[in-house]
Amino acid sequence: MNNSRITEMICPIPLSDHPEITMAHGGGGRLMNDLIDRIMLKAFTNPILDKRHDGAAIAVGEGRLAFATDSHVITPLFFPGGDIGALSVYGTVNDLAMCGADARWLSAAFIIEEGFSMKTLWKVVLSMAEASLKTGVSIVTGDTKVVDRGKGDGIYINTAGIGIIPAGVDIAPSRIREGDAVVLSGDIGRHGIAVMAIREGIQLESTIRSDLAPLDSMAGDLLREGLDIHCMRDLTRGGLASGLNEIASMTDCSIRIEENLIPVHDEVLGACEILGFDPLYVANEGRFVVILPRENGDRAVEILRRHDNGRQAEIIGFVEKPSYADVLMISSIGSERIIDMLSGEQLPRIC
Amino acid sequence: MNNSRITEMICPIPLSDHPEITMAHGGGGRLMNDLIDRIMLKAFTNPILDKRHDGAAIAVGEGRLAFATDSHVITPLFFPGGDIGALSVYGTVNDLAMCGADARWLSAAFIIEEGFSMKTLWKVVLSMAEASLKTGVSIVTGDTKVVDRGKGDGIYINTAGIGIIPAGVDIAPSRIREGDAVVLSGDIGRHGIAVMAIREGIQLESTIRSDLAPLDSMAGDLLREGLDIHCMRDLTRGGLASGLNEIASMTDCSIRIEENLIPVHDEVLGACEILGFDPLYVANEGRFVVILPRENGDRAVEILRRHDNGRQAEIIGFVEKPSYADVLMISSIGSERIIDMLSGEQLPRIC
Repeated sequence: MNNSRITEMICPIPLSDHPEITMAHGGGGRLMNDLIDRIMLKAFTNPILDKRHDGAAIAVGEGRLAFATDSHVITPLFFPGGDIGALSVYGTVNDLAMCGADARWLSAAFIIEEGFSMKTLWKVVLSMAEASLKTGVSIVTGDTKVVDRGKGDGIYINTAGIGIIPAGVDIAPSRIREGDAVVLSGDIGRHGIAVMAIREGIQLESTIRSDLAPLDSMAGDLLREGLDIHCMRDLTRGGLASGLNEIASMTDCSIRIEENLIPVHDEVLGACEILGFDPLYVANEGRFVVILPRENGDRAVEILRRHDNGRQAEIIGFVEKPSYADVLMISSIGSERIIDMLSGEQLPRIC
Repeated sequence: MNNSRITEMICPIPLSDHPEITMAHGGGGRLMNDLIDRIMLKAFTNPILDKRHDGAAIAVGEGRLAFATDSHVITPLFFPGGDIGALSVYGTVNDLAMCGADARWLSAAFIIEEGFSMKTLWKVVLSMAEASLKTGVSIVTGDTKVVDRGKGDGIYINTAGIGIIPAGVDIAPSRIREGDAVVLSGDIGRHGIAVMAIREGIQLESTIRSDLAPLDSMAGDLLREGLDIHCMRDLTRGGLASGLNEIASMTDCSIRIEENLIPVHDEVLGACEILGFDPLYVANEGRFVVILPRENGDRAVEILRRHDNGRQAEIIGFVEKPSYADVLMISSIGSERIIDMLSGEQLPRIC
């Protein structure tokens, strides 16, 4: 492909249907996936990117590196259980952990709105420093930009991270096989509900705290114990439903889960009812799924349960032959339901 | 340092003097350097970051990687000679090139404002694809966030990049020695003036085009020819003056340059007079300085002049014994002038 051909390419999203970016294009659902598939992947196509993992696995010399990035635009900046600083470190550490990598180095890039409080900046930066220390990553390079008042929203933080993938580890959705177990690391929906409750001013019986947490030690333990992990994915924007759909779409299989096996805290369920959300689609920041051979499923659950954040780990389903839908769920009353990707926008600016 | 100590640290910038972030904190001058030194470096301190290079050099196994990041918030998105897409690729490629690295992999993270035109997004993304192809880098991972109308400004793009530092290359300001030559790769001030002219609606005799260009082939040629380069720096925000000040502040030496030797296009000079700018402080996106042993200076100039963007390369000065100022300039009338870091804000949102 020569350069003139590139700039002449026609936009693959019909501009009559989608002339403008909408909030849903960032929501983690179908429109966001469409944007990424048809715009970003189309223009930037290369074998590493086309794998569509949370991070990129790169061969360098004898070894392999993982490379991931996330921008954080969450509002409010502080929420029960965390803040944008910790989120920006754990977000990228978790993406690297999902590649089976040991996260080592981060970049930190700040887009700050004119008039932002210096004291708050310091608080956010210290929270990043603390999160880095906890996860053993070093912030080694960075950038700071300031935009005019009214052209930002306090602070946006991007981090990119590099991790080292140990020899022998090969995690990729393409390795998923019929019969594999789907293990969920804990109860779902806390992060999204914690943020929405504070944003919408909803009073709950007790404050729901975000599940924000680093996943590196749980993922690392699974690998150190020698489990043959086929795929891992953290369940951020779009929640469990979108995560499973993204995985299933990259395989020839379907995933079938059981509603009764998915842990959801009562308070989260209650808040979801008030807000009209389905917990399957609510963002998490400290939960992930592991897909691995059925015979390793129980062992994975046992290892995850050793961790504070993994006490409620469960096998929630299995990978099956291709079916009429990518993801199916047996509901609590025994009926089968298609779990589709979110089509619109549920929770804006949740991460 | 344990975690509780981190979050109790007192903000090192006096909040009574600087309660809020101002545009100047992003302007590339003294306030930005203060913010980075006293907030970011203080909180994130580690041996790699503390080197304060444009990118981080990381030892991995037998080899060394360079790691750099930049967010781009330029307005307008399209300007004579380039656009935010090409800028976001070349910006990071150039930071890696300044580490002596061969740029290989990029992440791309988009913060898009609700209502942004899909057609413009596609145009920007294609420009990134073209710039990637030209510089031989692959965009291997990414992220897309959407923020509400009025909480952004069209599109902000962050890229982070990984490059490979060839064995034997050791570029660091700490290697600068008294007597070293300071080589400038071309005429200065084009990018800042190109952007400001369009933003302020200033009519010039001919349109000044940004100097936006990848520096990888020029930097690579200098290294391949075996020159013992001590330091390289691209002259973005804050221009030549800030770049030299940043370098000098990391050594025990002063830098003395000669105004007569610094190429500035007449149209740029004219526009600077209208706008009240000093070209020494105006941002470039395709110019850099090389600091290397005096005896290699002419050879470096010769190599740079082989390139379209290096035709005006010159030795503009030398590194000297420490003096009363970090950077001094012999003016065109023969007097000596201190070239200080920019103290306020000159050109907001230029990159």
